[in-house]
Amino acid sequence: MKNYKSKNRLNAAEYINGVLAGDRVLLSRAITIIESNLTSDKKLAKEIIQSILPNSGNSIRIGITGVPGVGKSTFIEAFGKLLISKGHKVAILSIDPSSQRSKGSILGDKTRMEDLANLDEAYIRPSASGDTLGGVANKTGETMFLCEAAGYDVILVETVGVGQSETAVHSMTDFFLLLMLAGAGDELQGIKKGIMEMADMLVINKADGDNVKMSQMAKRQYQNALHIFPLSESGWSPLVSTVSAIKNTGIEWVWDEIGNYKKLVYTNGYFVKNRNRQKIQWMYNNINDSLKELFYGSKDISNELTDLEEKVISSEISPVKAAENIIKKFKASF
Amino acid sequence: MKNYKSKNRLNAAEYINGVLAGDRVLLSRAITIIESNLTSDKKLAKEIIQSILPNSGNSIRIGITGVPGVGKSTFIEAFGKLLISKGHKVAILSIDPSSQRSKGSILGDKTRMEDLANLDEAYIRPSASGDTLGGVANKTGETMFLCEAAGYDVILVETVGVGQSETAVHSMTDFFLLLMLAGAGDELQGIKKGIMEMADMLVINKADGDNVKMSQMAKRQYQNALHIFPLSESGWSPLVSTVSAIKNTGIEWVWDEIGNYKKLVYTNGYFVKNRNRQKIQWMYNNINDSLKELFYGSKDISNELTDLEEKVISSEISPVKAAENIIKKFKASF
Repeated sequence: MKNYKSKNRLNAAEYINGVLAGDRVLLSRAITIIESNLTSDKKLAKEIIQSILPNSGNSIRIGITGVPGVGKSTFIEAFGKLLISKGHKVAILSIDPSSQRSKGSILGDKTRMEDLANLDEAYIRPSASGDTLGGVANKTGETMFLCEAAGYDVILVETVGVGQSETAVHSMTDFFLLLMLAGAGDELQGIKKGIMEMADMLVINKADGDNVKMSQMAKRQYQNALHIFPLSESGWSPLVSTVSAIKNTGIEWVWDEIGNYKKLVYTNGYFVKNRNRQKIQWMYNNINDSLKELFYGSKDISNELTDLEEKVISSEISPVKAAENIIKKFKASF
Repeated sequence: MKNYKSKNRLNAAEYINGVLAGDRVLLSRAITIIESNLTSDKKLAKEIIQSILPNSGNSIRIGITGVPGVGKSTFIEAFGKLLISKGHKVAILSIDPSSQRSKGSILGDKTRMEDLANLDEAYIRPSASGDTLGGVANKTGETMFLCEAAGYDVILVETVGVGQSETAVHSMTDFFLLLMLAGAGDELQGIKKGIMEMADMLVINKADGDNVKMSQMAKRQYQNALHIFPLSESGWSPLVSTVSAIKNTGIEWVWDEIGNYKKLVYTNGYFVKNRNRQKIQWMYNNINDSLKELFYGSKDISNELTDLEEKVISSEISPVKAAENIIKKFKASF
């Protein structure tokens, strides 16, 4: 994977064949093209994605989130190793709108999940950089397709940032797992109620040593709290469990229950329905982003907007009239 | 105000002069034009708004929300009567994206605040109809401008619907008041945490009879809960109070504290800063809505989207590529 930035681009077929053959080096280089903002790379990226698309989708996509300090890396390492021991191939992707992708952050990611990174059946890819969460999420979504086409049948998508990225992860995964700690109120953990409502499973980590009793208490509290939420469309009732990623306890139960979830949503049709909805939503997100880019990306428009802001503040023009004026200008610009 | 629908349109100057003179009939007819979706009316509306704009803004705008059953109408009636007794002119507007404006709903609104509706210094206008919350909010915002130009110096904007409309109300008001009941958990009251974070004051209604003790307890609980939120940009610490709208107790305290709020935000500059930001935000909301309308309002585009949705679901085309195709088509359509 080293030096891929300096290598010349191959043609689309070479990337496609490489990815379909499960070649890790070519997979990484293909992802680099997906993440690139060069116009020529964007064209190449679309060709690659379009070709591998029929080979994507054969996986369970699991979103994993939780605030810093909750032990996410340790959990993912323990969880990933378990899955590999059961014969799965696991890709770990991350979404972090705030990150600037750099060699440093790649090394950082490899270091924090060292055992897992050394296994052939694990593929770890840190977050793409991007100006907007939408852009990063798009790229992570397409990276997910590539990993699936390369034979990874469990995709873990973790959030590194906080806030909106949880929603982005939820919108691209089949199962949403929220890691928590005992003994800290929700507010202290920075978890918004809306995030808890999305969770298919709450996993209380660090349930070891002196912490076991408190973790058990927290489990009961969260179980009670979950009852107040309306039943989710999947027909699945969110579960709460305690684990210790460091002592490697409770991890297998998590995977077993994800298996039960899969059985349920395959049978009742929710799995396919949800994936279809996600694809459609993804298309519309792209359309809306492109529309805004088309508009706000224009230099003429942005100069005019600066003028209009002043006029609106001084009540020289109403906000509605100002909007009308600039839309007229936009239409005339084609 | 009756039969205004059947009357012929006047010219812009007649509406403008009428509104500025505080003529209620012409005010109502001008609002009807604001709410109209006819192209000719839209043009007339923009002319009216543009002219009265310099005469708008001289008011305190108070957003009032709370779930059905909390006693909103009773509170607004008691509150409005108090303000009028102090020499104010009060306009009561509502936002309800789900409503279809009809004679029925107007009568309904008049009935539910009968005492207030009979006072010359009160002007009650129910929600405009609209397909989108954005559209309804725009119209309510412009109605607010007209009422201010007509001399109403307190504008109460209430939400009738639930959910997103609170955010719309918050984005167009100076002070946000959340009505609650004692003895019901937040979840039961349908109040999302995000809504509570926006509140400048929580008012626990129905603090009368057997309910007084519980209301006092609820007050303390909410006061504790509010401490966990970060200090708001206005520099104001949200207050909690108990009132009985039916017994008319605690209402004056609410108004006194709004007076203190006004003093604070006039002095520290937040009042103007917030209003300017709201105007700018309003312009951008309009632009984004218009952009979407320009795109999704096209018949060609919407036919193509139906096709693309199918192709995306069958993995014939990627969501990203589908978006690219349709944006190309859009650009070519000008």
